[in-house]
Amino acid sequence: MKKFSKKLNVQLIAETFKSFGIDHIVLSPGSRNGALATHFSHHPDFKTYSIVDERSAGFVGLGMAQQLKKPVVLCCTSGSAVVNYYPAVTEAFYQNVPLIILSADRPEHLVDNFDGQTIRQKNALDLHCYHSTQLTEDESTQSLTENLGLIKKAVRNSIQNSGPVHINMPFSEPLYEFQETIDIQFEEFKIPDLAKENDEIDDEKLIQKWNASQKKLVLVGMQFPDEKLNEWIKKLADDDSVVILTETTSNLHSPRFFNKIDSVIFSLKDEILEHLKPEILLTVGQNVISKKVKSFLRNHQPQEHWHLDEFWQPDTYQCLTEKIQINSIEFLEEFVPKIIQQKSQYFNDWNSIRKEKEIHQNEFAENQTFSDFKAMEKLVETYPENAQIHYSNSAVIRYAQLFSHSDKNSIFCNRGTSGIDGCTSTAAGAAIVNDIQTVLVTGDISFFYDSNGLWNPYIPHSFRIILLNNGGGNIFKIIPGPENSGVVETVFETRHHLSAEHLAEMFGFEYKKVENLDQLEDVLEDFYAISEKPKLLEIKTSEIDNAKIQRDYFNFI
Amino acid sequence: MKKFSKKLNVQLIAETFKSFGIDHIVLSPGSRNGALATHFSHHPDFKTYSIVDERSAGFVGLGMAQQLKKPVVLCCTSGSAVVNYYPAVTEAFYQNVPLIILSADRPEHLVDNFDGQTIRQKNALDLHCYHSTQLTEDESTQSLTENLGLIKKAVRNSIQNSGPVHINMPFSEPLYEFQETIDIQFEEFKIPDLAKENDEIDDEKLIQKWNASQKKLVLVGMQFPDEKLNEWIKKLADDDSVVILTETTSNLHSPRFFNKIDSVIFSLKDEILEHLKPEILLTVGQNVISKKVKSFLRNHQPQEHWHLDEFWQPDTYQCLTEKIQINSIEFLEEFVPKIIQQKSQYFNDWNSIRKEKEIHQNEFAENQTFSDFKAMEKLVETYPENAQIHYSNSAVIRYAQLFSHSDKNSIFCNRGTSGIDGCTSTAAGAAIVNDIQTVLVTGDISFFYDSNGLWNPYIPHSFRIILLNNGGGNIFKIIPGPENSGVVETVFETRHHLSAEHLAEMFGFEYKKVENLDQLEDVLEDFYAISEKPKLLEIKTSEIDNAKIQRDYFNFI
Repeated sequence: MKKFSKKLNVQLIAETFKSFGIDHIVLSPGSRNGALATHFSHHPDFKTYSIVDERSAGFVGLGMAQQLKKPVVLCCTSGSAVVNYYPAVTEAFYQNVPLIILSADRPEHLVDNFDGQTIRQKNALDLHCYHSTQLTEDESTQSLTENLGLIKKAVRNSIQNSGPVHINMPFSEPLYEFQETIDIQFEEFKIPDLAKENDEIDDEKLIQKWNASQKKLVLVGMQFPDEKLNEWIKKLADDDSVVILTETTSNLHSPRFFNKIDSVIFSLKDEILEHLKPEILLTVGQNVISKKVKSFLRNHQPQEHWHLDEFWQPDTYQCLTEKIQINSIEFLEEFVPKIIQQKSQYFNDWNSIRKEKEIHQNEFAENQTFSDFKAMEKLVETYPENAQIHYSNSAVIRYAQLFSHSDKNSIFCNRGTSGIDGCTSTAAGAAIVNDIQTVLVTGDISFFYDSNGLWNPYIPHSFRIILLNNGGGNIFKIIPGPENSGVVETVFETRHHLSAEHLAEMFGFEYKKVENLDQLEDVLEDFYAISEKPKLLEIKTSEIDNAKIQRDYFNFI
Repeated sequence: MKKFSKKLNVQLIAETFKSFGIDHIVLSPGSRNGALATHFSHHPDFKTYSIVDERSAGFVGLGMAQQLKKPVVLCCTSGSAVVNYYPAVTEAFYQNVPLIILSADRPEHLVDNFDGQTIRQKNALDLHCYHSTQLTEDESTQSLTENLGLIKKAVRNSIQNSGPVHINMPFSEPLYEFQETIDIQFEEFKIPDLAKENDEIDDEKLIQKWNASQKKLVLVGMQFPDEKLNEWIKKLADDDSVVILTETTSNLHSPRFFNKIDSVIFSLKDEILEHLKPEILLTVGQNVISKKVKSFLRNHQPQEHWHLDEFWQPDTYQCLTEKIQINSIEFLEEFVPKIIQQKSQYFNDWNSIRKEKEIHQNEFAENQTFSDFKAMEKLVETYPENAQIHYSNSAVIRYAQLFSHSDKNSIFCNRGTSGIDGCTSTAAGAAIVNDIQTVLVTGDISFFYDSNGLWNPYIPHSFRIILLNNGGGNIFKIIPGPENSGVVETVFETRHHLSAEHLAEMFGFEYKKVENLDQLEDVLEDFYAISEKPKLLEIKTSEIDNAKIQRDYFNFI
C-alpha cells in the first residue's frame, strides 16, 4: 500500500522535483523529515538511499550528481544534521556539482526557544550555496503557489550554476499522516530555458591577439571527461606556437599534450622558466593541482591571461586580463576555426625538456624498490579498461600526477576544496550510479577520516578500494616545512598503526593485504574480477621512507 | 630545542590566550596551521592534542571545555576543515560551552581564486558563534595592537557568553620559520571584570507574586553539577505550594524533587493535568528533555512563566512572562530568604500520583526479562561511585530518564541540539581532562556515527563505553508515527548487523559482549576495575522488541 504524505507541500516539492527530472534522493534518517522520507520512498518516480551519517551522505550525493550531471537531493532532519552537509556543500560549490539540500525544520517560532533538535537552519549554508530559501507550511492555494515559485527558483539556480542550493522546510506535527493518492496535480510545467546567459565575447579582439603571438600556453584544470572538448583542444594543439598542459583530472589525452607538468618544470632554472613563459596564457575549467605550475606562472607572468569557464573566473595567477565566461566547447567551436597556425619554437622548447626528463623518470623508476611511488606506477599501468578512478587528497592525487593515464580511464578527485573529508563517500556515490567499475585509490588518513563512507548498503559489488597505507600523513614529509618543526610525527603526520582489515570485515568488504611488488602484481588481476562483495586492497608501505623517495625522484629528474 | 614561530601574530595570539588562562589546544593536522601547531606544541604553557577528524575534534574540545569551565581552542588548517567543526559549534552555542575556533586561512585575496584548500572561511560559522573576527597578517606595531584588541574581544566574548567564537587567521608563506625565543612580551594585561552585566531584576514584584500563589512549579533543565544550586533549590522545595521537577541532566538531588517526570505525568487525564497546572512556572537553566512535560505545559499554560538563566531566555512553553537573566545562584540567594511558605495541597497532589506510579514501575520492572529497559535499570544501579556518566542521544538518554540516579554520579548529555553526531567524542574529551572515571552509555546509531571518536590517542585507560546495540535506530519505533510509514526498517531505523568488536580491536579497546542479564551482572564489577586499556562493553539486545517493552512500560504505569 502506498503511503503518500497528506502534507500538500511535501507532495508539491516531490512533483516539482519530478518535473525537473530530479529523481535521486539521499535520505538521512530522522523524525522531522519523516513525511518527506516516507513520501519519497513510496513514490514510484524516485530512487531513495538511506545513509545515516549526514557528512558522508553529503559526499555520496555529490558523487552521484557528478556522474548523473543533474541535481541530487540531500534530505535530513532538523537540528545539527544539516551542518554536517557543510563539507560536501563547499566542495560542490567550488567543483560545480548540483545538489539540493532539503532540510526539514521545526516551525520557525521554535528556533532559539529550546525545542529539541532546533538550530538556526535558515541560511546556515548561505556562504557556499548559490541560493537559499525557506518554504511556508501553510496549505492555502496562495501559499502553495508561492512555495512552488520558491522551489522552482531554487532548482533552477542549482541547475544553472551547477551547484548547491538550500531549501529549508518547517514542519509542524502531525508528521505522519498518509494517504494512498497524490492530490497535487499540475500539468508538467514548461521548464524554461535553463541555459545561463553568456557574456558577449569579443572574439575578434582575442583571435587577433592569439594569431599575433608565438608563445601560447593552454593550461587545463579539472574537467569532466568530454570527447568533444578533447577534440577541440587537440585542434588547438596542432600549432607549434601552442603548448597544452593537462593534469590527471583534466581527462584529456593526446601525445601532443604535456600531462605530467610537475615532472617537466620542476627544478628548471629561472632563466629557462622565463624563456618558457607564454605571452598568452589560456586556462580552461576548474582547479589546478600542480603547485609548481602555479608558482611558475605567478613568478613568470604572461602579458595576457584569459580564463575560459562557464562558472568561475578566478584570478589564480594574479594577472587575469580576460574573463571568457561561456561554455568551453561553445567558445572553441567559434574560436579555433579562425586560428592561423604560427611558426614557432615554443612547442619544441617545451618538448625537448620533456623528452630529457622522461628518460630520467624511466631510469629512476626502474631502479626503485617497493614504495608508494612504485605501487602507484603499477596501479596506473594496470587499471581495468573503462574503469573510473577516484583519487583521494592529497598525497595520492599528487603521486598520480607523476604517471600517464590511459584515455580508457576517467579520473575524479575532489579538488574544489581539496579536502580529505569525503573522498571515500564521493567514490561510493559515483559507484552506486555508475554502470562501469569504480575504483578508489586512497591514502590512509583520508580513508580513516571518512570511514563512514563504507557504512553504505548500496555500494555495488564491483566497487574497489585500494588503500596506500604508509602509516600516517606522509604529505607532511613531502611538502617542505613540517619536517623542521620538531613535531612532524606527533602533530602533522599523526603516525598510526591502523589497518583497514577491521573496517573491511565490519562493512562486508573482501580484504587483501600486500607488502611488496610481487604480491601486488600477483593479486591485481583477481582483485578487479567479478565478485560477490566489494573489495579492499591494502598496500602497506609504512616501513618505507616514501617521502624520501619522492624527494629523490624530483632531485633525480 | 624549542621551535617558536617567527610570525609575531602567532606569538601574540599564544601569549594572549596564556594571559586569559587558556591552555588546552586541540589541533587537527594540516599545513596552513603549521606555524600555530608547532608554536603551541613547543610552548611550555599549553597542552596540545592532535585529533585528525575535525568533526570529532570539535566535540572533543567541547567535552574538555565543559569540564574545565574555560575556553578550549580548536585549531585547524584552511579549506573545508573549519566547517567540520560546525556540528560541535552549534552544540556549544546552545549548551553554552566556551570554545575558540582558530582557523588558519590563506591570504584573503586567494579566496574564490582557485587556490588549494580555500573556501570562504570568514564568518562561515557566524550564525552560531557569539563573535567572529579575522586578524591581519601585518606585523607593524599598529597591526599587532589591533590584532591584540581583536583577539581579546573574541576571548572575552567566549568567556562572557560561555560559548563559541571564531578567529580566522590568514597566513602567507613561509609558514615554517622558527626561532628559540618568544619576542612578544607584554605585562600580563589586566583582565577586566568579565562578568556579564545583569539585568535589573524587580525582586519585589516577583516575591509578592510568589508568596501569593498556592501552585508553583519549578522545572530545571540541563545543569552542570553544582552543590550550591542544589542547596538553594532544596530550600525552595521546602514548601507545600512548590513542586520541583528535575531531569537526569539537571544533576540535582533530593527526595523532595520529582526526578522522573515522564513516569509521573504520562497518560494522566486532561482534567488531572489541568489540576496539576501551576499558577507560576519557574524554569531554570538549559534544555529540557521530556517531551511530555513540554506538551503538558503548552497545553495547560500557567498564568506566569518565569525563566531564570544567565544566557538564554527561551519562550519554550509559549507563555513566557518574566525573563530573569542573571546567574541562578545569585538570584536565589536574594529571592529565597524572602519566601513565606504557603499552606497548599500542591505538593501532595503531585506526590500521591508519583507514589502510585512508582509502585507500578517497580512491578513492571520486576516482571521484565532482558531488554534495553532492563539493562539500563541495571546500569544505573551499578555505576561506580563518583564516576561521570555521559549519555548519548536520543533513545539512551530517554531510557535513563526512567530511573533515579545517585547523587554520586554527575550526568552529561549533548542536549543543546540533541544531535547524535558527537556523543562519543564529547565523552572522550571529558575523560581526557577528568580525574574521575568517565563512562559513556550510548546507542548503536550514535556510536557508529561518531566512530572517529575512538581515533584519539589521549583517551585514558579508565574510560568506559557501554554500547546498547539493538541493531538500529529503535527511537523510531518508540516515538509515535514512523511505525505507520511502511518503511520504518529501511528508511528510519536503518537496521544493521554491525558490532563494535572490530572498532574496539582497531582502536585498542578491551572488548566484551553480553546478551542477557546474568552475563551483564557477571561482568560489571570487573568492567569498571582498573585496566591497561580503555574498555567497551557491548550489550546486544537486537533480537528483542525493545520498542514494544518501552510502550508497554508507559501503558502499564
